[in-house]
Amino acid sequence: MKEGIKVFAPATVANVACGYDILGFAIDQPGDEIIGYLSDKPGLRITKITGANGKLPYEIEKNTASFAAMRVLEHLGETGIGIEIEVHKKMPFSSGLGSSSASAVAGAMIVNELLGKPLSKKELLHFAVLGEQVADGAYHADNVAPSLFGGLILIRDNPTLDVHSIPFPEGLYASVVHPQIKIRTADARAILSDQVTLNQTIEQTGNVAGLIVGMYNSDLELIGRSLNDVIIEPQRAQLIPHFHKVKEAALNAGALGCSISGAGPSVFALSINQSIADNVGQAMHKAFFDNGIENELFVSTINKEGAVRV
Amino acid sequence: MKEGIKVFAPATVANVACGYDILGFAIDQPGDEIIGYLSDKPGLRITKITGANGKLPYEIEKNTASFAAMRVLEHLGETGIGIEIEVHKKMPFSSGLGSSSASAVAGAMIVNELLGKPLSKKELLHFAVLGEQVADGAYHADNVAPSLFGGLILIRDNPTLDVHSIPFPEGLYASVVHPQIKIRTADARAILSDQVTLNQTIEQTGNVAGLIVGMYNSDLELIGRSLNDVIIEPQRAQLIPHFHKVKEAALNAGALGCSISGAGPSVFALSINQSIADNVGQAMHKAFFDNGIENELFVSTINKEGAVRV
Repeated sequence: MKEGIKVFAPATVANVACGYDILGFAIDQPGDEIIGYLSDKPGLRITKITGANGKLPYEIEKNTASFAAMRVLEHLGETGIGIEIEVHKKMPFSSGLGSSSASAVAGAMIVNELLGKPLSKKELLHFAVLGEQVADGAYHADNVAPSLFGGLILIRDNPTLDVHSIPFPEGLYASVVHPQIKIRTADARAILSDQVTLNQTIEQTGNVAGLIVGMYNSDLELIGRSLNDVIIEPQRAQLIPHFHKVKEAALNAGALGCSISGAGPSVFALSINQSIADNVGQAMHKAFFDNGIENELFVSTINKEGAVRV
Repeated sequence: MKEGIKVFAPATVANVACGYDILGFAIDQPGDEIIGYLSDKPGLRITKITGANGKLPYEIEKNTASFAAMRVLEHLGETGIGIEIEVHKKMPFSSGLGSSSASAVAGAMIVNELLGKPLSKKELLHFAVLGEQVADGAYHADNVAPSLFGGLILIRDNPTLDVHSIPFPEGLYASVVHPQIKIRTADARAILSDQVTLNQTIEQTGNVAGLIVGMYNSDLELIGRSLNDVIIEPQRAQLIPHFHKVKEAALNAGALGCSISGAGPSVFALSINQSIADNVGQAMHKAFFDNGIENELFVSTINKEGAVRV
């Protein structure tokens, strides 16, 4: 029996309040695992999928993980090699936590690891984004890039994958609650108006700039003032029952800021240490739960490693 | 005869392409000078104005410099003190170079210097912005703050004057041309649509974030890619004859980027050293001049000192 290799790709919080489509960070848990084996039988195959309740296809060109894996193999001219992969979904779908991105990243990573790391993470990014595109339809990296690289990532421009790692203060913790309601990314996008006022744009650019300056300078108060989305959150909040109560609970418990994770329904908050982040997380959990919405809580540092072989 | 004190407040480039209303930097020249004297006769008076062609009022509450000075005196409870000031305009009006801001900053500074510096520059900011408001009508600091502090300044939020200094690479030079045409700030604002598309906002936030990351990391190529205004410049360019030729000339001469300075008509470019900045400046000057528009060229580093006693 051949020895397998396992990779883990973490969940991510895209948008980060004011950075719609351009910012994202990775968290420690949850995430997806892929186990890969070299095989004597040529070609890429998915041999097992767990944690998906039968919702993920085994067809190579329809599954985000294998799609990304296949593109890496093509790029390397290695489509003849025999590879079998098991996809272990360990995070919820349509949660706003970058589930399909984590799978795509893990798919690109597993092939690279099995072949002896011929490519850098930077070189893998494009193929992982292609994998994510199978699920989402859009070529964008605000979940894929942080899941792959870890940390807080700016995607200045999606089409050219102009991505940059942004430093952040030690001790910054994320509290993320995933309520058991479903929002399709397509619906979350459809609800958004194409039009923004100039004043909103000024406010949003000011907050994005303030957030980045705050991260570089470890200016926690500035980070807090800047974690404010005046464009997307007001429109999407209506898709998440009791969002405003959850946000208020987070801020009252001492969070620097709180907003929707990605397209939702997950809600995230940032805090200055683990103790506050735990309290904030419990407060957010309770605010959903007391209003009849089951939810799962994750508290972690900002994950610095991104996708890893485990 | 009493000894006078002289202060200089520099011209500024607001907006910096993608940072409409939230970014500005100071240049070395031109700028305004104010000379102040303590006097035995109580009250604040303007005794001389030069360089203004009779366009600036001597009334304390109508002149931006004395308005700012008066607010500082009130704040300090020193309205009874005798002060005479001479306002020497050494830069053009309505140029897009922050002329009224430089006067307001110098007005606030001269009083502070005459009284032995009771206030920090940070404490003077509000009063200088009030002075600028007399000319412009709006309470905003994107010219005032860089003229006062020097450097590249983020104004995350104008109402609360949430201002932050952003580092920039050594060697960054600005080339600024002031064409001899007039645009009133009010007209430059009136031409702007209240509506922006969501895609433009995403692009603009990405560029603002990229510009700031580029400045912190001294990533000159990233700065160049980010110096791109997809919202304001396309609307205001029509107010500046031959703007696109001037911009093209700047980029062809090696500038990192080029856009409108403030509300225009001045046009600025950033370059990675003085030699390129000189070439870029000459190319911009020539592009205006060859199309029949007289213009004045200024090439300087980003001014790190801001307003100073000289």
